Amino acid sequence: MSIIVLGTVALDSVKTPYGSRKHMLGGSAVHFAMSARLFAPVNLVAIVGQDFPKKYVNFLQKKGIILTSLVMGKGATFQWEGEYEGDLNTALTLTTELGVLSAFRPTISEEQRKIKHIFLANVDPDIQRHLLGHMHSPHLVGLDSMNYWIKHKHKSLINLLKKVDIYVANEQEARSLSGENNLVKAVRFLHNLGPKMILVKKGEHGVLFFCDKFIFSIPAYPTDKVIDPTGAGDTFAGGFMGYLTKVKKINEGNLKKAITYGTIAASFNVEDFGLSKTSCLTLKELEHRLAIFRQCVLF
Amino acid sequence: MSIIVLGTVALDSVKTPYGSRKHMLGGSAVHFAMSARLFAPVNLVAIVGQDFPKKYVNFLQKKGIILTSLVMGKGATFQWEGEYEGDLNTALTLTTELGVLSAFRPTISEEQRKIKHIFLANVDPDIQRHLLGHMHSPHLVGLDSMNYWIKHKHKSLINLLKKVDIYVANEQEARSLSGENNLVKAVRFLHNLGPKMILVKKGEHGVLFFCDKFIFSIPAYPTDKVIDPTGAGDTFAGGFMGYLTKVKKINEGNLKKAITYGTIAASFNVEDFGLSKTSCLTLKELEHRLAIFRQCVLF
Repeated sequence: MSIIVLGTVALDSVKTPYGSRKHMLGGSAVHFAMSARLFAPVNLVAIVGQDFPKKYVNFLQKKGIILTSLVMGKGATFQWEGEYEGDLNTALTLTTELGVLSAFRPTISEEQRKIKHIFLANVDPDIQRHLLGHMHSPHLVGLDSMNYWIKHKHKSLINLLKKVDIYVANEQEARSLSGENNLVKAVRFLHNLGPKMILVKKGEHGVLFFCDKFIFSIPAYPTDKVIDPTGAGDTFAGGFMGYLTKVKKINEGNLKKAITYGTIAASFNVEDFGLSKTSCLTLKELEHRLAIFRQCVLF
Repeated sequence: MSIIVLGTVALDSVKTPYGSRKHMLGGSAVHFAMSARLFAPVNLVAIVGQDFPKKYVNFLQKKGIILTSLVMGKGATFQWEGEYEGDLNTALTLTTELGVLSAFRPTISEEQRKIKHIFLANVDPDIQRHLLGHMHSPHLVGLDSMNYWIKHKHKSLINLLKKVDIYVANEQEARSLSGENNLVKAVRFLHNLGPKMILVKKGEHGVLFFCDKFIFSIPAYPTDKVIDPTGAGDTFAGGFMGYLTKVKKINEGNLKKAITYGTIAASFNVEDFGLSKTSCLTLKELEHRLAIFRQCVLF
């Protein structure tokens, strides 16, 4: 079983209290792939520009990411520049240059259309819908978005939510899209929009999961080393969807395990800039930290 | 085994998106007592003014709270008026009238001096130190404080922290007193100030506990009914300290259980104004919700 992820491949420039980095490899699809690859082969669907460094393509290939649907468009690669302060919970976006992303229409192979596990990482909901329309027999579809689309493509997003199984949102997005301040009310509202499952990412405060049958809530791994949280949400989603792709069966036990794997993967992501930690991560290290985590949260 | 709590008995006026109440019985010692009483006899040490309604004294007596050290001073009872908006995570204090509290020096009976479990709920650290100095053989001392004392009685608070076993702080207080944005770094810093154990209350995001031997973190009970969070932190502390008083032995298992009892007690507190929920709460209801909570957080 393999998984397909649609999203961005970006050049990220980040400034945090611990330093700054320019034009790192980043983007929602890349961060997702770095953790999902630990569980299943990952097909990456994205666009880069002519300026995209060859070394980054080689790097992704070395990590086993399937790049047959990574296309190169005319123009510049999507760039994001952001800054974190204080508790590093919120990124201040300094600049966003869409470049080739603005005209992106994903195309995938006939073979890839048969893939049953799909994650629509954060891009324009119209691009997400376009890809989803090409899939032959989705078994599990996850969706991420962002405040920008909630505001500027509200209708597209609402329509798309009817077609996905899992909506992964951060706290602010969940509150903003639902209009509810209370998170439990917010996830109920989002659930009524269509997705069977709602996953709210709360950064350093962990995750809240909601479906018809149960609610699940766990804190984040208590790390004292938060260097750069960029991509933590996508890393979480990658661990979560990757594990479900591996085990196939969607039941309470597997969903809870998937959430803990995502949580631990995300804890590695924040401990260094960009992909520094997650690109070297092994399943053994993930399992080791999960065992420590169990001690910290179980009673 | 019984417990002694020093703190405030107040007349609270609260406005939330769900309504408003005037001059409810409240205060740190009262909210603490409402949950601690489920586990152990509670001796309340506080001062009220001549205006304090007799019905509130009767109410506390009916709840089994030992009031031999609740004194009546010349003047008005401490009053707090606050408002909550949005996610109800932060109270906006509108007015605080100290009244009799400003000249309070607690006196307790010889019998009460022998009590081994002590909680110094939020009052002036000099008053807290005064009471602690009277105790013969403390076995477990918990301390709560607030930003006002961190700012205005910093030295008194720092000195007092050397003499307590558990410091219970909310997230903002932990960050402000430690100067650390990262909570894990913050609790380490606070631990170095003296207390063997640090408990950080994060409101809707749960609790982080730190001691030499382990870290423990659990989310809050996922309730969709947050009406009035006033006193939730004290209710948490009451459940936590109450349970430890009952079981006596301070080990990892009991500490974790105490934290979950505190968490569940606090979840009842927020579901209605003032003491409406906690004053009727039974251990059976607490256990019942704890069983539901286990389903929501264990994996």
